[in-house]
Amino acid sequence: MVEKNNTNGADAVIETLYRAGVRICFANAGTTEIPLLLAMDRYPDIKTVLGLFEGVCTGAADGYGRMLEKPAVSLLHLGPGFANGIANLHNARRAGTPLFNIIGEHATWHIHADPPLAMDIEALAKTVSDWVHTNKSPDLLAQDTFDAIQTASSGKTASLIIPHNNQTADIKYIPPSPSAIYCEAIDTKAIEKIAKTMKSASKTAFFLGGKALRKRGLSIISRIQEATGCHLLTGTFPGYIDRGAGLPYIEKIPYFPEESKRLISQYELIIIAGAREPVTFFGYEGIDSYLISPGQKKVYLCHENQDMFYALECLADNLGSLKKSKTQDTPRPMLRPDDIRSNLPSGGLTPDKASHIIAAIQPEDAIIVDEGLTSFFAYYPLSANLSPHTLLTITGGAIGYGMPCSIGAAMACPERPVINVQADGSALYTVQALWTQAHESLNIKTLICSNRSYNILKIELARAGITSPGESAKSLIELDSPPIDWVRVAKGFGVDAVSVETASDLAQALKKALSEKGPYLIEMKLG
Amino acid sequence: MVEKNNTNGADAVIETLYRAGVRICFANAGTTEIPLLLAMDRYPDIKTVLGLFEGVCTGAADGYGRMLEKPAVSLLHLGPGFANGIANLHNARRAGTPLFNIIGEHATWHIHADPPLAMDIEALAKTVSDWVHTNKSPDLLAQDTFDAIQTASSGKTASLIIPHNNQTADIKYIPPSPSAIYCEAIDTKAIEKIAKTMKSASKTAFFLGGKALRKRGLSIISRIQEATGCHLLTGTFPGYIDRGAGLPYIEKIPYFPEESKRLISQYELIIIAGAREPVTFFGYEGIDSYLISPGQKKVYLCHENQDMFYALECLADNLGSLKKSKTQDTPRPMLRPDDIRSNLPSGGLTPDKASHIIAAIQPEDAIIVDEGLTSFFAYYPLSANLSPHTLLTITGGAIGYGMPCSIGAAMACPERPVINVQADGSALYTVQALWTQAHESLNIKTLICSNRSYNILKIELARAGITSPGESAKSLIELDSPPIDWVRVAKGFGVDAVSVETASDLAQALKKALSEKGPYLIEMKLG
Repeated sequence: MVEKNNTNGADAVIETLYRAGVRICFANAGTTEIPLLLAMDRYPDIKTVLGLFEGVCTGAADGYGRMLEKPAVSLLHLGPGFANGIANLHNARRAGTPLFNIIGEHATWHIHADPPLAMDIEALAKTVSDWVHTNKSPDLLAQDTFDAIQTASSGKTASLIIPHNNQTADIKYIPPSPSAIYCEAIDTKAIEKIAKTMKSASKTAFFLGGKALRKRGLSIISRIQEATGCHLLTGTFPGYIDRGAGLPYIEKIPYFPEESKRLISQYELIIIAGAREPVTFFGYEGIDSYLISPGQKKVYLCHENQDMFYALECLADNLGSLKKSKTQDTPRPMLRPDDIRSNLPSGGLTPDKASHIIAAIQPEDAIIVDEGLTSFFAYYPLSANLSPHTLLTITGGAIGYGMPCSIGAAMACPERPVINVQADGSALYTVQALWTQAHESLNIKTLICSNRSYNILKIELARAGITSPGESAKSLIELDSPPIDWVRVAKGFGVDAVSVETASDLAQALKKALSEKGPYLIEMKLG
Repeated sequence: MVEKNNTNGADAVIETLYRAGVRICFANAGTTEIPLLLAMDRYPDIKTVLGLFEGVCTGAADGYGRMLEKPAVSLLHLGPGFANGIANLHNARRAGTPLFNIIGEHATWHIHADPPLAMDIEALAKTVSDWVHTNKSPDLLAQDTFDAIQTASSGKTASLIIPHNNQTADIKYIPPSPSAIYCEAIDTKAIEKIAKTMKSASKTAFFLGGKALRKRGLSIISRIQEATGCHLLTGTFPGYIDRGAGLPYIEKIPYFPEESKRLISQYELIIIAGAREPVTFFGYEGIDSYLISPGQKKVYLCHENQDMFYALECLADNLGSLKKSKTQDTPRPMLRPDDIRSNLPSGGLTPDKASHIIAAIQPEDAIIVDEGLTSFFAYYPLSANLSPHTLLTITGGAIGYGMPCSIGAAMACPERPVINVQADGSALYTVQALWTQAHESLNIKTLICSNRSYNILKIELARAGITSPGESAKSLIELDSPPIDWVRVAKGFGVDAVSVETASDLAQALKKALSEKGPYLIEMKLG
């Protein structure tokens, strides 16, 4: 695709991205990335998507990578630009999103002068990346880019820092060489042993994450559950989960530790697949960080660099041949879609009513981007039996992920409607994302959970026995003076919007919004 | 002030802040900072100011610390919260702002479980701090807090990370012990030598920064200039500069290197005071990073840990006694305030016309927070002879500093009007700051330079000979589809606003805005 005869370092980067199948780049660039911008101009098949703040770019890359399971690319400006993207890169890392950040840097001969924008970019990048590299020579740019993409492909974050003069230097393009990808064989004896342990255990649960929560994983897990009746669990904030009729019900571990402990304590055996061991979200005095107690049996199905699907298949085959009779009831919320749809709540909106209405109205194949936090807890069990849909959540706890993540999800799957259920305080962290939604005419319906407070802090204070905090604490919790006028904010960024206060108005507004393509915002004023 | 008999670690932190004279804390807190919030409740004299994003808190702390030259305090939530504050902490560090960040951390016994929000906070903090420390014991919290304040006091950034369990632990408050502050004596012989070098040099310039640009420094420098006619320069983006009638004119080094090289090359001798050696903002092929060439004489007046005011006084005394006749003309823009006021431009708004009108109308004692970038270049020489005012600029180049910095400046000096001249693209980085301006009823007039593009990138592309970039590059430069509706955005955050397109409408709107207290936003649609 390079039309010039002489290629420069920036061309080598973009050529390598193109050959690796990259077709989108979420960017906010500056002077040190100009050669990369100009190189992009020679690849019209790679779309550049502007975010008006780097947290929008990295959050969008997270959403895109989560949906497509292939490397999402961001282009960021120096240390301060990268720093602005860290919070959403943190979420991406916790979600195991394949993600590749390209960061421009001052010219190698300029950096020693410590110019105003100079920072230790490597140190910043290391906090949220599995792979960080500063390019040492323009001739190595194709290989560095390839190595980064290969690293990212396995659900990792790679960050490549490229000095400006290496971008502009003339080079000959040398196609990079793939390195061997290490994949450890499954120990089938170990899987057999797990099957036998399951047979002897009185009560078993799987604790699932990563690829296990996608259709392919869930369909194999279905077979295991049919054979054994085992229960299926995941963390409070799974990165990605395919849901709806036909797929097994995965119970989310509750947020607060007393409840999550109680849930997990009932199992003699917990098999962990595609996840790390479950831990409490925060540390609570007197409660162990780890939710599985030392008296319980804990088994990892396989290692990170083994083929989990094959391990699951092996386990299902083993269990099938054991012809073990079910000893457990399979729990599943009993609500049928018709029950939900025929009993729509009315009156003033509450979090539970809003959750009910969203579940009742969400269309088939919807992508639900959930940053509803305390306002959306009721939705998850309600929506178990709906038509197929995908749920993304705020895996790393760094707020401001929902609006940007929705951009990436919508660009990855333009034929699927995106519903972003969005806590108001968190929305304000990356509210500029609305502009990109308008700019790209993305089919995203944003539902603001407007409770005008950082409600989780109220709940945590109440847990600590404090129901009426003093002025100082209160001033850091309440967002009501003045209240955000969400309709104005959204329209200011080019997204049409409405505010609703009752359940029936929400139902009506959401149906109407879903009947049209494009972005729309509904402020749900919650009582 | 502690009313409880038993003090906990959090109380010790706040008690120490209180005793050190801290009366304001810019905060966005979470669960890991709750004990600190509750401790704040026992100190009503310390005001907590909520920012709806951490970049707002750190930018506000920067503005507060710049104005008052005493430690500004921020309270931030774990790694992701701190990361969101990094860009404006970078500006603060480059401005030499005294700043103290307090960051809550997971309980020491919980962190090893690597819970969702866990990050390497120390690594993040080190990129923008002169002092980083994780508290090791609740008994040491008073001393750690004191050490941080003492470090910050000398224009540094200190970051203290406090595990949650150390905040809640019961302790006995032990007042901290001050450590000796190292201050090196001025070498008066060296100053004498500088005076003699000045006498023999054909043409001398001072390159000034830090305290040298505040009234006290400028009044001594006035004496030196009167005795010698030397020229006075500062960087393109000084952190703080007192200006207006009666104070010497300090020329800002131009942004682009050809012009800045040309300016500096005319001097035989350059004396650096309160600043680092001037360098180009970016690296440009074929142009040295350092603006002072090897053939020029370069002298540092004193070291960072010496008393610059004393050094300046010594130099002035020496020069006075030398009775050196002036050999240089003192340059100073000739425009008188009356000339500016009587010749107000009319017609469609341009950057130059807007700059003229702002200079003509700005009231005495105004604080000008300048993030106007390419739209506000004309203002600086125009405003040299106006009534006294203070100018703050975006010292570290990390955009999104203006609106937050204005909050801090307005809270530091509530009797002075703040005028924030604000590039539109940069404004969108931390636009949530408008809410805090409304919440605290701050007297800030925000003037949006609405050119609907990242104009600096257009200029840099034109420098590289590219006047019509391709679609890909253009899509990362233009912000016009849709244009931001600034009036709606501002009103959405609770700040009244108007949009103007002509010079006379701007003049009228700005006069009206300044006649009333409180925040107001004017979108200046620039042609």
